[in-house]
Order: sequence, then structure tokens, then C-alpha cells
Amino acid sequence: MNASLHIVILAAGKGTRMYSKLPKVLHQIGGLPLVQHVINTAQSLDPASIQVVIGHGKELVQEQIHSDVTWVVQDQQLGTGHAVKCALPHLPKDGKTLILYGDVPLTDAETLQQLLQQAGDEVGLLTDVLEHPHGYGRIIRNENGICAIVEEKDANAKQKAIREINTGILVLPNSHLEKWLSTLQNSNAQGEYYLTDVIALAVADGITVHGMTVRESYLAAGINNKLQLAEIERVFQLNQAQQLMTAGVTLRDPNRFDLRGSLSHGQDCIIDVGVVIEGACEFGDDVEIGAHCVLSNVKIGSGCQIAPFSHLSDCVIGNDARIGPFARLRPNAHLGNDVHVGNFVEVKNSTVGNGSKINHLTYIGDASIGTDTNVGAGSITCNYDGVNKFKTVIGDHVRIGSGTMMVAPVNIGDKATTGAGSVITKDCPAGQLTIGRTRQVTIEKWQRPEKTDK
Amino acid sequence: MNASLHIVILAAGKGTRMYSKLPKVLHQIGGLPLVQHVINTAQSLDPASIQVVIGHGKELVQEQIHSDVTWVVQDQQLGTGHAVKCALPHLPKDGKTLILYGDVPLTDAETLQQLLQQAGDEVGLLTDVLEHPHGYGRIIRNENGICAIVEEKDANAKQKAIREINTGILVLPNSHLEKWLSTLQNSNAQGEYYLTDVIALAVADGITVHGMTVRESYLAAGINNKLQLAEIERVFQLNQAQQLMTAGVTLRDPNRFDLRGSLSHGQDCIIDVGVVIEGACEFGDDVEIGAHCVLSNVKIGSGCQIAPFSHLSDCVIGNDARIGPFARLRPNAHLGNDVHVGNFVEVKNSTVGNGSKINHLTYIGDASIGTDTNVGAGSITCNYDGVNKFKTVIGDHVRIGSGTMMVAPVNIGDKATTGAGSVITKDCPAGQLTIGRTRQVTIEKWQRPEKTDK
Amino acid sequence: MNASLHIVILAAGKGTRMYSKLPKVLHQIGGLPLVQHVINTAQSLDPASIQVVIGHGKELVQEQIHSDVTWVVQDQQLGTGHAVKCALPHLPKDGKTLILYGDVPLTDAETLQQLLQQAGDEVGLLTDVLEHPHGYGRIIRNENGICAIVEEKDANAKQKAIREINTGILVLPNSHLEKWLSTLQNSNAQGEYYLTDVIALAVADGITVHGMTVRESYLAAGINNKLQLAEIERVFQLNQAQQLMTAGVTLRDPNRFDLRGSLSHGQDCIIDVGVVIEGACEFGDDVEIGAHCVLSNVKIGSGCQIAPFSHLSDCVIGNDARIGPFARLRPNAHLGNDVHVGNFVEVKNSTVGNGSKINHLTYIGDASIGTDTNVGAGSITCNYDGVNKFKTVIGDHVRIGSGTMMVAPVNIGDKATTGAGSVITKDCPAGQLTIGRTRQVTIEKWQRPEKTDK
Repeated sequence: MNASLHIVILAAGKGTRMYSKLPKVLHQIGGLPLVQHVINTAQSLDPASIQVVIGHGKELVQEQIHSDVTWVVQDQQLGTGHAVKCALPHLPKDGKTLILYGDVPLTDAETLQQLLQQAGDEVGLLTDVLEHPHGYGRIIRNENGICAIVEEKDANAKQKAIREINTGILVLPNSHLEKWLSTLQNSNAQGEYYLTDVIALAVADGITVHGMTVRESYLAAGINNKLQLAEIERVFQLNQAQQLMTAGVTLRDPNRFDLRGSLSHGQDCIIDVGVVIEGACEFGDDVEIGAHCVLSNVKIGSGCQIAPFSHLSDCVIGNDARIGPFARLRPNAHLGNDVHVGNFVEVKNSTVGNGSKINHLTYIGDASIGTDTNVGAGSITCNYDGVNKFKTVIGDHVRIGSGTMMVAPVNIGDKATTGAGSVITKDCPAGQLTIGRTRQVTIEKWQRPEKTDK
Repeated sequence: MNASLHIVILAAGKGTRMYSKLPKVLHQIGGLPLVQHVINTAQSLDPASIQVVIGHGKELVQEQIHSDVTWVVQDQQLGTGHAVKCALPHLPKDGKTLILYGDVPLTDAETLQQLLQQAGDEVGLLTDVLEHPHGYGRIIRNENGICAIVEEKDANAKQKAIREINTGILVLPNSHLEKWLSTLQNSNAQGEYYLTDVIALAVADGITVHGMTVRESYLAAGINNKLQLAEIERVFQLNQAQQLMTAGVTLRDPNRFDLRGSLSHGQDCIIDVGVVIEGACEFGDDVEIGAHCVLSNVKIGSGCQIAPFSHLSDCVIGNDARIGPFARLRPNAHLGNDVHVGNFVEVKNSTVGNGSKINHLTYIGDASIGTDTNVGAGSITCNYDGVNKFKTVIGDHVRIGSGTMMVAPVNIGDKATTGAGSVITKDCPAGQLTIGRTRQVTIEKWQRPEKTDK
Repeated sequence: MNASLHIVILAAGKGTRMYSKLPKVLHQIGGLPLVQHVINTAQSLDPASIQVVIGHGKELVQEQIHSDVTWVVQDQQLGTGHAVKCALPHLPKDGKTLILYGDVPLTDAETLQQLLQQAGDEVGLLTDVLEHPHGYGRIIRNENGICAIVEEKDANAKQKAIREINTGILVLPNSHLEKWLSTLQNSNAQGEYYLTDVIALAVADGITVHGMTVRESYLAAGINNKLQLAEIERVFQLNQAQQLMTAGVTLRDPNRFDLRGSLSHGQDCIIDVGVVIEGACEFGDDVEIGAHCVLSNVKIGSGCQIAPFSHLSDCVIGNDARIGPFARLRPNAHLGNDVHVGNFVEVKNSTVGNGSKINHLTYIGDASIGTDTNVGAGSITCNYDGVNKFKTVIGDHVRIGSGTMMVAPVNIGDKATTGAGSVITKDCPAGQLTIGRTRQVTIEKWQRPEKTDK
């Protein structure tokens, strides 16, 4: 643990320009709330404490974030300086405090560690260099480091030409923090206490302000509206895609890949265009995911091929399975090795044994299917009587004829066969053919309907 | 109305490099013909008249464009000057005429209003500044404004270095128009009368030519081939995406979003990647559209979740519905609140009452379904006898067993239940179980077929 | 044939950073192995011989590449100079040898022809100009052409500032080749023989080294990891998209189009976003492909509309057909003119006659369907008894009722009708109605199941 390091995350803002009922820091990047990214990074620095200052929608934030942090409530939004002041009671008099922002999700641990190292026991300020710095506080440097931040409205022409700007992320010595925060003034247009003003106080106190520039702008980019949310989402996704490709995953188009969670993978996995992966997914070796698949919390064994337009959620697939196209695996589908699930097939809360095939237009729910069984097209496990759900048990080497309705609870024995179009309401003995259908008849003198006027 | 403003839109060209049977101005951006964009912008300026000069494919253009404009036919394509001359009989001797192009779709009203304002009663010419101006007419300016346009072939080295170019969009005083147009010469390689030549005539007459540069190149970009069509399509789509995001819609990837029509929306709507929206769509609050959905003329109530791969056309969905994945709603599907439509389900020309569920592999056509009814997997309304379509009426709190064939016309009473696998050809009484199936039998001494040689 | 031209393609590398079991040159761009692209380009130059030097995974390479080339095995990877030396026994003493690389897939014939022309009977070296040349061998030129290549580690500050770099692609006179190759030294860190060193030998021998710079960097870009593979894939795809658009195809978004094979097309074809095309596909005129379709080896007649989410493989479609959405055509589906195949319908190894319709939730396998026949929703050809597959023959003007199970082998005569929900196990006479279902009954005093505790 870094015993001298304390982290305060400012997360109280409303985010008016998000036009949302949700507090700003709960909007998501890569499937995680903005502030969760910041907390995760903060935790990776192993600090002595993490405080998250919340205000707008504070109940919602606390509900959705389950990390081990100290919540500090800022009831009135009186500025960033005031927000940090709210956290002061929880901070010791020694050590240092790193200030992060709940709406700046992609600052990475490496950047923050460099900042902490450069700052030592003094002040460290993260800066960025922008092509178009208009609107941002400009960094004024002298031989001692940063000597001032000049806001746009106060800047002269020469200062406006400065492209190095203040990101707001800074580290401060706790020894001076209380004094500086209590000295802040709110005599500005908004009537707010700005944390940025501590820089001037530090300089006045003879404390060096070390400026460190981020290596890329996204590391310090804040999110104030949905355009910035989308922009940072794409940066985040492309970073993830590059990590996967570096580790050997083939992505047919890294710009058309979304990972909202985690993906562990073996060797020689190939992911085609338009795939969306959510939750925690695991792939073995040689897994191929076809175009436009959506996967969520799926474990896929080695050698599997998932054909296009498959939508797989909360399920487990053995090795060498062939799934899709247009397959729908729902929660608690457990498929063995060499299983085939074909087009327009839904499997839910069921196990399917090794080598079994369900290739067309079928619904399997609350069922257990043995090995090497074939389920014909258009078959349905009728698992629901309108109020309760019942189980269908199908053995090994069974052949379910096309269009078989299996009215659960029902057992179909090993090597049993059902006739096409049968409604199976009672158990089927092993090894036998069971049918439930009527002999066909041809109607004499029947005449086709003709077109009627409507 | 801007009584002194007349607009002439040149839309007679063939568009040889489009390699198409369609006249150039009917190719589409954002689902609308190019010339329709220009007419819409022209109308937003509220002019005294709009004339559209048509030639190639003029019947098709008139068929597809229903706006209130005056059609002027240019039978021979003798150049832009000649095209405007064709419109001359409809123009009064006073006021001003703005010349637009049917293949320059994205010029916006703001740009044109600025041009009109700058031109006053004199000449205004819209220009662009290109990094690679090769091939375009260069703008020569002096202290009075634009003094000449020099074509590439006539330009000296110094003139070729000029990056400001002629876009062709200009406004002219009607008082001089007839004289200038009748003075144009066609002594050039193409033997055409070029409208651009009026600039020289204006300068000669001592009329100031005010040049105004577009703020972005796409505002004056013409479309001559499918590459430019695709390029402008993406600009158009990205502009729309930015407007939606600015208004609070969350787009997971603005580069993978297509809107070909209009979208009105409430608060906190989220649209995932790869979604295509056509026609006029309306979303309430908190609508979530999953990845890769295609929506066309759909009204979706608040709180609805549309899962991936859903294709919804010309239908209405109440609040809090769960649709998809792989749902197909076709014209005149009217779904109530809390309705569930699941995977591989098609609903067409039917109403579905509040709280009803159709979750799997089902076809509902020409039906009326009451409230809180459950339709089992694999059920079908047999609405078509080969020539006529008939209606299925299903009451409230009904449970349709899986694999039920409902042969229309047929009524199924409130709280009725049908047995799985039944063929229902007659009305089902309310509150009762109706079945139509045979008792299953197991065949004695039956032997499985064995592999035969083919 | 270019009798004096010999080509050696170096394809022996492992590609460690691909993290793959596959040898590097078998990874794919546009559906073809990297080395296949190089071989195809080499063949287009019509040389006297093509040798491909293989090593890592040589059996796999020979298995997957069926081109008419001479395989040369380099058992130990001792460097590029050594690799060319392996090919030496097959090269005549006169003529010239062009050296290409199996992991540099997009060098085009035009570039190589220019290089050959510039080199004449001397040495030609392809170069690139990079913004960030760090790590590459810099090209030192004097008035005679290229006089040296300086590697990064040996370069002084001035040389490091040179942005022209060595691509490795070069043409050498066979008259000097053997001497130069046998002079190469391996006294470097890797202990390898570098082909690049022949440049110094040529200069020493007074042979001019002509440097030619590629017009775009991708033409000489090598692939060493999955990031570069993805980057070059997108360049390749965008080039193909631009060719199609130039030829008149409308692509709604060229950045969301993948062609892994060939596409021939008529006039006025429109391809929506997210479409993937594989193998050899042919479109007639006026073909429209909806969003997110996946097509593989499909021939589509004029006037067809393929709706979104259709997945078509190895099939033939007549004119004016309406396919999809959510249609699945599998190998040997042969559809006539004006055929409709609707949502959640699978057709495999079957012919469907002109004007026939299969609109909903149906499986057609191993069947022959006549003209103007309608197959109702939920119908299935039960073609598989668990071991053998049988054929279903359906005539002209047939009406298959919804939910009909056709147990093959079975024939359904012209103008026959089957009742909804019938299981058809015997032939159906032409013109008649055949049904196989039970009269429905309503159960007296039946009570609905109630919720049980679980």
C-alpha cells in the first residue's frame, strides 16, 4: 500500500449537457460507469484512502458503484475547491492527496504514477498541449516550474497563444491543503471556489508546482456531453482492440469491434466485423466469431465456430461446436463438445450433450439432452403451462422428429425416436418409435377457395 | 416571404459517371434525392419563386419530387448559362436570383443567407478554399472584391497557387440578368454557355462581386460519382448523429449510425452500433435500441428495449415493451404496453394487448390479441387460404399452447387455453381447454432406419 | 512472357509476433493468404519463373497455395540473403531477378513494372518516404542514384533525418547475383545474411542502383503482427470499395463493406451498410442488398431485393426475387424468378420455381418446388430420418398449409392443397385437399394449472 497517498475523486456534478436523468458520472464507457473507471484506476495505485465526493444523484451513484471507497457528500455544488474541502475531514495532516475527476475516465495509472513521482512532496499538475486551447486555463511556466494558470478571459494575446493547458488533475501536499482550501475565494462570476486557485497559493508559499504533460489528450479528457462520451468510447474501444491484436487476436476491423467487459482468449482466435462482446467472456484456441454476433458472458471452447448473427448470453459452449447463424443461446445453456445449434434455434436453461444437433427452427427450454441426439426442425419443448415451467429430459442417441411438441414434464429414453409432427405428452420408451398423429386423408370433391371481394 | 428572392436550381444533368439509369439528382443522400435536399433548403429561405431546371430523366424527376416548385425544361444541355436562361421567362425584372445546383445537396440555409446578405443588390459568389485546388476555377480578388475567375487551363503559375475556388453558387441582380445571359458566348471546347462568365460581365459593368467562403467544404461539394455520393452521405450522417448527441441521445458509435428520415426522441435514449433508422420514427424516453437493428417508420413508447437484430417496420409499440432479439414487426403491428415479442417472431397487421407475450418462433398475422395473453412457441395464425386472408381473434388472459395452428377465421375466448400442437379450426370457448391432437402411441418392434448407399 | 524476368518470393518466416500456429504468410487479407496476393501479382507480370522460398510451416503453405510456382525450401532461417541463395540453383545466369516478400501483400503490378523499367539491366530498389522513419534503413543518394543504405544503429544525426527508407523490394541482374550473394557476410548481431547488403556490393561494382519511391506506403507495407494485418485489411477493403464505386455500385458506407473474393455486378446495384461478401459473387442489374447481409458464392439475378440480416451461401437466385429479412439460403438452393423467401426461412439443396413463396418460419431441404406454389408458415420438409436424407417433390400452384410436416420421400401434386397442421407421410394427389389432423375437442370441467411453489 502507498501509505502516504490519498485520492479524492470529484463526482458530484449533474452534467446538464448530458440531458439525462442519470448523474453524469454514471454514464458509461465500455459498459462501465465513468466514475467506476476512475475508481478502478485509483485502486490500482493502492492508496491509503479513496474518497468519492458525490452530490447530484448521490443515491444512484452509491447504488451502482460497489467499490470499497469512502463516500463524501457535497450537498451544494459550490465548486471544485469546495468539493475537496468536503473531503478534508477524512484526510490526515501528512502525506499527499491526488485529485481525480469522475468524468475523466481514461487517465491511466502510468500517467498518475509519473505525476506523483515528479511532484515528490510538492505540487504536481497534469497538463495537456492542445492545438486549439481556446477556453482552457493556460499554463504559465518559469524556471521554477508552473508559476500561474491564466484563465481565457484574463489572458493577454501572448498568453492566449500558449497551448499548454490545465487538466485539473493535481497532487497536493496534505500539510498545506487545509490552509490553501480555506484561503480560496469565490469572488467570481459563478460564485464558486475553484481548486485551480491553489496553484497560485502554492507558488506564493514557495512550493514548486511540477507540470507534467499527458502523452495523449484522451488521458485527461473530460466528458460533458454525448459527443464527448461517444468520442471517448471509441478511444477506449480502439485501445482495447489494439491490446487484443497485439496479443494475437485477429480483428477483421478494429473500428467495428466493441468490448464492454473482459475477454480472455487462447491462440488463433478470429473476430469478424460488427461483433459486440459484453460482460466476462472466455474463448479457447481457434475460436472464430462470425460477423455481427453479440456475445454476453459466454465461455466458448477451443475450435468453436460461431456463425454470423448469433446472440449468445450467459452460456457455456464446449469444444468444436458449430453455432449459428441466427442462433440464440440464453442464460444457462450448457452445450457440450461438437454440438451443433443452427439457424433460428433458441436454447435456454438446458444442457446439450456432446455431439448432439439442433439445427433448425427449434426452441429448447428447461431441457436436458444427452449425447449424439438429433432434434429435428421445428421441434419445441413445451416447458410452460402458463404458470409453471417443467423439464424435458431427452436421452442419448435420440432422434426427435421434425415438428415434435414435447409437453413437459416428459422423458424421452435413450435411442428413442419420435415421429414427425407428434405431440408427446407422456414418456417415450427407450429404443422405440413413438408417434402421435393422425392418418392423412384426402377430401373428395373439395374445391379451392376463390378470391372474395373484401 | 422574401419577395425579392428567386431561386433557380439546376438539375438537368445526366451524371454520366454515376453509371446509372437514374438521372443524377435522384440519387439519394440520407434517403432523400439530392435535388430534394436542395429544394428543401431553398424553401427554407422562403423565396418568391423556386424554379427547377430539368432535362435528363425529367419525367422521373417530376414523378419523384412532389415539392411546390416550377419545373423548367432544358431540352438540350448547352451549359449552366443556358440552363438559367431557360428559367428567365419566369423571373421578374427586379429582385435577385440565387443559383443552386441539384447535385450540391448540403449547402445550408445559414450559408445562403450570409451570401445573400453580403451580396446586397450586387453579385455574391460562394467560394471554397481547397488544399488541392487543381482543376477548379481560381478566384482572383482585388480591393473591390472578386475581379475574375481563371480556369485551370488558362491559369499562370501564380494563379494556380491560389487556393480559393469557384463553387458555382451565386446570387445575381435580376436587373442585369437578362443582359448578361444573352451576352454569354459558347466559344469553348465544349461549346457550352458557362454561367461563371457572368462574373466577368458584372465586373465589366462595375457591379461588385462579393465573394464569401464556405465554412466547410461539404457545404459546396457537388456529387459526380458514387465515391462522392458515399463521402457526402457520411458527412450528412455524421452531422445528423452530432445533432442527436447534442440533444442528449447516446450513440455508441456515431460512425455506425444511419438515419434516413427523421427521429424524434425523448430523454435518455441509447442507440447501439450498426442501427439503421428510416422514415419517420419516434422514441419516447428511455428507449434502448440494441446493436444492428433496422427500424422504419416506427413509434416506440417510453422504456422500451429493442434487442439486437430486430427489424421493425411501420408499427407502433407501447411503453415498456421488450422486443427481440431477432424480432420482425411488419406494417400495422400495434403493440400495447409491457408486450414481449421474442426471437424469430413475426407480427403483421395485428394488435397485441397490454402485457401479452409472444416469445418464440411464432407468426401472428391479421390477428387481434387481448391483454395478458401468452402465445406459446411455434404458434401460427393461419391467416391465408391461398387466396384470401382471414382474421384471428384471441381474447384476454388466453394461453395458446406451443405449436398451435389457428386456422382463421377463428375466435379464441378470454381465458381460453389451447393444447400444445393443436390445430384450431373452430372457435374456442372462453375459460376452457381446447385441444386437437391424437393420443401418442409407441410402435412395437419398430426398427430404426439404417444408412443406405446412395 | 517476360522471358528475362525471374521472381523470388521470400515466404519462409515464422511471424513470431502474430502469436499463431499458422506461418505468417498464410494469414489472410481479403480472404486470401498474404503470399497468395504476392504470387498473383507476380504472375500478372508474366515472368519466366516464380520461386517461393518457404521454411516455417512449409507443408501448410504448400497445402493451401495451389498456384503454379516452384517451391524452394530454406531449412534454416539464416536471413534474406541466404533465402535468395536457396533459389539460386533455379535461376539462369542471365536476365534479372525481382525479389518480393510473402508478407508484403499489396505491392501492385504497376509499381513493380515501373521499378523494372527504371532498373533496366542494373539494380532497382523500391523505397518509401515515411514521416517517422525510425528503425528503417535510410537511403543515401548521390548523383548516380542510391549509394548506400544505412541502418538505424549505424546512422548519424544527419542520416537519421533522412525520411527515404529501404522497402527490401529490389531487382538484381542475374549476371552479378551469384557473386554478390556468395560475398554476403553474417557478421552481425543476428548472425544473418542480409540481402540489403547487395546494394553496397552493386555500388562497389559500379552498377547503378536506381531508387524508386512507392506512390503510397501501403504498397510496400509488411505485416508483422495483427495490428498491421488489420491495417492492411482496411486499406485493401477500401481500395476494393473505391473500385466498385467508381464502376457505379452504390455503397452506403465504404468503411463498412467487406469483399473477400470477387464481385461482378450490373448497373444500379446498391449495397447497404455492414454487408460482407465472400467467394465469387455475381449481381445482375438493380440488385439491392440490405444492411448487415452476409453473402458467399451467390449469384443474384437482376431486380432482386435482399432484405437485411440475410445470410446466403452457395446459391443461385433468379430475377426480381424478394429475399429476407432473416433469410438463410444454404448450398444448392436454386431459386427462380419472382420467388419470395421471407423471415426465418431456411432453404437448402432445393429448387424453388418461378413465383413461389415461402414467407415465414420454414425449413425446405432436399426439395423441389414448382412454380407459383405457396408454402405456409411453419412448414417443414422432414428430409432426414436420422441416417438418410430423402427428397420432397412439390408441384406447381400448390398450397402448403401452415405448419405442414412433409415426411420425405413424398410427392405433392400440382394444385394440391394441404391442411394446416397436417403431417404428410404419403403422396398427395394433384388438385385435392389432403389433411392429417384430429378434430378439436374442448375438455369439460378442465381447470387451469395454478402457480406451484418450486
